[in-house]
Amino acid sequence: MSNTKFALGLDFGTESGRALVVNVATGDVVGTAVYRYADGVIDQHLPGTTIKLEPDSALQNPNDYIETLKQAVPEALKQAGARADDVIGIGVDFTACTILPTRPDGTPLCFLDQWKSNPHAWTKLWKHHAAQPEANRINDIARARSEPWLPIYGGIVSSEWLHSKTLQILNDAPEIFDAAEKIVEAGDWIVWQMTGALKRNACAAGYKGLWQKELGYPSNDFLRALDPRLDRMNETKLAGAIVAPGTRVGLLNAQAAQWMGLQPGIAVAAATIDAHAAVPGAGVTEPGRMVLILGTSTCHMILDRAQHLVPGISGVVEDGILPGSFGYEAGQVGVGDIFEWFVEHNLAAWYKHEAKVRGISPYQLLEEEATKLKPGQSGLLALDWWNGCRTPLVDANLSGAIIGATLGTRAPDIYRALIEATAFGRALIIETFEQNGVAVNELVACGGLAERNKLLLQIYADVTGREFVQAGSGHTSALGAAMLGAYAAGKNAGGHDSITDAAKQMFPAKRVAHTPNAAHHATYQKLFAEYRKLHTYFGRGENNVMKRLREIRNEV
Amino acid sequence: MSNTKFALGLDFGTESGRALVVNVATGDVVGTAVYRYADGVIDQHLPGTTIKLEPDSALQNPNDYIETLKQAVPEALKQAGARADDVIGIGVDFTACTILPTRPDGTPLCFLDQWKSNPHAWTKLWKHHAAQPEANRINDIARARSEPWLPIYGGIVSSEWLHSKTLQILNDAPEIFDAAEKIVEAGDWIVWQMTGALKRNACAAGYKGLWQKELGYPSNDFLRALDPRLDRMNETKLAGAIVAPGTRVGLLNAQAAQWMGLQPGIAVAAATIDAHAAVPGAGVTEPGRMVLILGTSTCHMILDRAQHLVPGISGVVEDGILPGSFGYEAGQVGVGDIFEWFVEHNLAAWYKHEAKVRGISPYQLLEEEATKLKPGQSGLLALDWWNGCRTPLVDANLSGAIIGATLGTRAPDIYRALIEATAFGRALIIETFEQNGVAVNELVACGGLAERNKLLLQIYADVTGREFVQAGSGHTSALGAAMLGAYAAGKNAGGHDSITDAAKQMFPAKRVAHTPNAAHHATYQKLFAEYRKLHTYFGRGENNVMKRLREIRNEV
Repeated sequence: MSNTKFALGLDFGTESGRALVVNVATGDVVGTAVYRYADGVIDQHLPGTTIKLEPDSALQNPNDYIETLKQAVPEALKQAGARADDVIGIGVDFTACTILPTRPDGTPLCFLDQWKSNPHAWTKLWKHHAAQPEANRINDIARARSEPWLPIYGGIVSSEWLHSKTLQILNDAPEIFDAAEKIVEAGDWIVWQMTGALKRNACAAGYKGLWQKELGYPSNDFLRALDPRLDRMNETKLAGAIVAPGTRVGLLNAQAAQWMGLQPGIAVAAATIDAHAAVPGAGVTEPGRMVLILGTSTCHMILDRAQHLVPGISGVVEDGILPGSFGYEAGQVGVGDIFEWFVEHNLAAWYKHEAKVRGISPYQLLEEEATKLKPGQSGLLALDWWNGCRTPLVDANLSGAIIGATLGTRAPDIYRALIEATAFGRALIIETFEQNGVAVNELVACGGLAERNKLLLQIYADVTGREFVQAGSGHTSALGAAMLGAYAAGKNAGGHDSITDAAKQMFPAKRVAHTPNAAHHATYQKLFAEYRKLHTYFGRGENNVMKRLREIRNEV
Repeated sequence: MSNTKFALGLDFGTESGRALVVNVATGDVVGTAVYRYADGVIDQHLPGTTIKLEPDSALQNPNDYIETLKQAVPEALKQAGARADDVIGIGVDFTACTILPTRPDGTPLCFLDQWKSNPHAWTKLWKHHAAQPEANRINDIARARSEPWLPIYGGIVSSEWLHSKTLQILNDAPEIFDAAEKIVEAGDWIVWQMTGALKRNACAAGYKGLWQKELGYPSNDFLRALDPRLDRMNETKLAGAIVAPGTRVGLLNAQAAQWMGLQPGIAVAAATIDAHAAVPGAGVTEPGRMVLILGTSTCHMILDRAQHLVPGISGVVEDGILPGSFGYEAGQVGVGDIFEWFVEHNLAAWYKHEAKVRGISPYQLLEEEATKLKPGQSGLLALDWWNGCRTPLVDANLSGAIIGATLGTRAPDIYRALIEATAFGRALIIETFEQNGVAVNELVACGGLAERNKLLLQIYADVTGREFVQAGSGHTSALGAAMLGAYAAGKNAGGHDSITDAAKQMFPAKRVAHTPNAAHHATYQKLFAEYRKLHTYFGRGENNVMKRLREIRNEV
């Protein structure tokens, strides 16, 4: 038996599942494979049928998760040249809230002939947005009752979260609700399949299920106020110990071992949410270092020793990201999608033509041109609210604004102003954390945008006046999941006794740091003061014009 | 000799001069011809030389005005089939302030070998913008001295106006200033060439030369404060009787008659500014009916029996537009050029492609798409300050803004919002007039945009809640000039004894009226309230962010 040990990181995304084989001593990624879900995102008809889904539905087939085990894992192992018995631990990260109703033994209701024709028997994917009426009801009742957990979640429950989705099942398909002896996060479900044990990870339970270590789930009183049929749901459908991500749930069982081409008995860690796996995956296990996943939207995560109430954050959960600390999540709901909106719908033909001629993307051309501008040179200032504002205002009815346009304004000016607006939005999130007791000393970026757009990271460094470090791995979440697997295995088995140790050993040395330019920061401080002023004016009730514009639009 | 009499309207523009032959009894246009200036707008080198002009220069060659007489007039007459002796009067409209320095006999200095190599010997066209430092000095000194005429001009003198341009000649070419025994508006110069008499029209003198019937020109005290060498300029270089547009200056002399293929002795009217000629040209000779020339910018003109001080207007001049009334001019500095900015620099490739496929212009496509939207449906609100704000704020340092953008915002939404913004800007100009005693009952539109864009006129009607009438003639200014010619001829010669009579007879019956839609107006009243609030916030000092953005831009 060789001395080299490996951990397996399983990353279940929206369209595909990925397996990553990582050397637990060095962090070297020695194998990786992707299984593209056969049924993908189900948003039109149930697979193989003409059963039409209602608008805003987004379902998945849990069989695709099993197929990821069967197909991606053996392929990654083969690529790694690793012996099956050198894999010591398995970690899982998963999109959330992504839930499915099951029998007591874990069989998804959608696997049963009795229920498979009912859309509510299938997995509801995180971006299933059909439960907005239910979310509205939850928010109304929670506010009316001053539920103690509401401020912990920035005062608003999303239509994407567990209670909204569950209430939708109850409203639209009470027979499925009755048949669902368990309602379970898909991340916990796949661990259940691998180990035979149902434990629930504190990350998904905390950030998406309104669970808090001190308070538990929302009370039966509250549930009854929502709907009498929800009574005692906590003790029945949601039953199961809640453990920190990375906690060993059990050992790989024979059937799953066979699917995956592994030996039974390997330690399997409690799952975590994909975004949150990126925290250890980016080498962060201590307070003060904020991890940002820069994509169409941006998720901000940071650890602290204590619980603080920070206005407008998505949530704070003890053990929610890593055991032994409070994990904070804050959101910026429009980032990459604002840039995409600009390039798709507002970029003049000339730029697209020029990019094509030069064989680069329009984004690259705009980045090149916008890099030539100095801070402030565009003369523009924007508010980054194309998708509303999550943190700190928690207001979906705000909208985007651009100030300062002249006849000389050109696309690179606007593109740069939009990037700067998201930077100011971020600076305000950081300020909100710090003003409420959570220190933010360093920023660690990962996600697609971080890898593609150098100008963006430099602007973020210049605006915030903080070093912006680009995390080394291209698969940060899967790497984080592998770290959880190495931790679940423990040192005696060749793994690690803490996630901190795992991250120290397994985080790649390669880090690209973007250091703030002092002169640029000074200019941006002036512009940030202007941003803050407009933020207050339009966002905090001085002039509710954005909301009135929406009302007028809705009336006509 | 036939009974049919004709008036000649001569319209001297930026790139060309037009001759229009009009039946004085019916207003029928029976002949029209254009002479494209051989030297056009001179903004790089003096014609036929390598003598380079300073930036922002815009000159003309007065020989092009003579060539217009020689070429366009005979051609128009030929087209009309009119006998030379049936032309009874000649009227002229001209761009302004467009000035040239001359010898006492009217010979332009640029015609003389001694001076022709000096750019300052040539005509300075209205859009010559190189005299901004001089304008700044004029404004500083006028403010410091509380000059009585300053509020009449909205508190600010433009770099385009006579004193700015004259002071530039003095500063940059004192030898030309000394040699210029007369400095004269090109409109008055061409009338001088036709009649041998130098009279100055009250329109150009009033709106561009700071002349007022009660006050005369700015005092010698003021001129000396500007520069001692300007002392007594009013009595020397600017000498000459000032008369209302249309006043008979004299009779066509032999030389000019030969150039034009006419008989000597025809009445020649005092010139007027091209924009202002559009007032009678659009059939308007009475108070309460505002004439708008909709182009890259928009000029608003209205008559009243009395003088009122209206904040931010371009000027109010007794006899300035028509004899016997006070003529008001107000400006919106960005209209068509904002739409052009959007289409040229911000319109996605798809729209240009689609327009090409369908064989229409992108403007037509956008108009078509934007017409499908209801008021308020875009969810957007814009401030129309891409070029600053003239009336009522007189602030070139303001800039454009768009509020309300979402990921669903598309080009037709923005295009419509930009049109609406110019409509709100206009509504505010009308409100400013009315609050200060000048009634505005009806709106009469002419100019290129009015002819091309039906949606624009409907939105203008819906926003202002007033009928928007499109003037019938495609050559409103030239028609107005012909009316002045018919008035200068007088009734005994077959013309008219008042401009009102001329306009009644000669204005074409065809008028397209855009009637406000009550429901749309109601929605626009809500949006206008929002516009006004933002106008005050950004424009009147509550938040000077636009100016600070400019300062920051200028620093970097």
